[in-house]
Amino acid sequence: MRILGIDPGLQKTGWGIIESEGNRLTYVACGLIKTDAALPLYARLAMIDAGLEQVVGQWQPETAAIEETFVNQNAASALKLGFARGAAIVAVARKGIEVEEYPANLVKKSLTGTGHASKEQIGMMIKTLLPTAGKIGEDQADALAVAITHAHHAASRKLMGGIMSGGAR
Amino acid sequence: MRILGIDPGLQKTGWGIIESEGNRLTYVACGLIKTDAALPLYARLAMIDAGLEQVVGQWQPETAAIEETFVNQNAASALKLGFARGAAIVAVARKGIEVEEYPANLVKKSLTGTGHASKEQIGMMIKTLLPTAGKIGEDQADALAVAITHAHHAASRKLMGGIMSGGAR
Repeated sequence: MRILGIDPGLQKTGWGIIESEGNRLTYVACGLIKTDAALPLYARLAMIDAGLEQVVGQWQPETAAIEETFVNQNAASALKLGFARGAAIVAVARKGIEVEEYPANLVKKSLTGTGHASKEQIGMMIKTLLPTAGKIGEDQADALAVAITHAHHAASRKLMGGIMSGGAR
Repeated sequence: MRILGIDPGLQKTGWGIIESEGNRLTYVACGLIKTDAALPLYARLAMIDAGLEQVVGQWQPETAAIEETFVNQNAASALKLGFARGAAIVAVARKGIEVEEYPANLVKKSLTGTGHASKEQIGMMIKTLLPTAGKIGEDQADALAVAITHAHHAASRKLMGGIMSGGAR
């Protein structure tokens, strides 16, 4: 299963693609979509949209996951993050791809065992789990982390679905 | 000039199309895109996206305007509104159409002369300015109100641009 992970932001949106087969994870690609703060909002959101559309077209993920950041900032920052996340989700969902959301602390816990892991700990785990990714930035690492979380949870759901002969979703 | 006005929301997104020629405004169409709260976020945003894409395809607006609601709610509501606004902006901007933002109180002031007008006052002004719109809902009225605001401001900008032999933007 090919998974797209997204770490959205109005300034920088990280993305990462992994391949998941049973317990095996393979790094495929990652990148960063930057928007120019001097541009009006609509143009910045269109850049996120176009960037992710290109990623989806090139890498053909079957499913996608996005980090659901907890909002403890002020309402204005929350709104900005909402713009970026809305744009990112739409860019992918429009292609008929489901976009699962995972809380940031669940992503951290899935990778490191603790919901309060630092950026460095996440970076270290990505290096361990996806050694072929090489040296990558924080936003790409976060995007790959959410993709890995999705791989783990999709595997659990599949297992549960089999056991319960239903489908866990 | 054909203008699309949008009043975005995760549950309900109102839209309205007007034609503006000099000082003359004509009602063209309006509608409401509703999303099912039982669906996951990505599916709801995809519905807003698909709905507006259809509106743009059918009515071919040259320019668009969206209400920039002031955020005095909590961060969680701001984030939700951000999702919807991000999705709405992207749906239109992707087609190469500029999306201008107008603060809610500027929209109210443009229509009624006061930034603190009630929903009823807005509704009355829409009836007066666009009599052929007939009986419409609040969200459609708000969408038409932002389109009218854009028509007024675009006309002023054009005038200013002429005077200053530059372009006011």
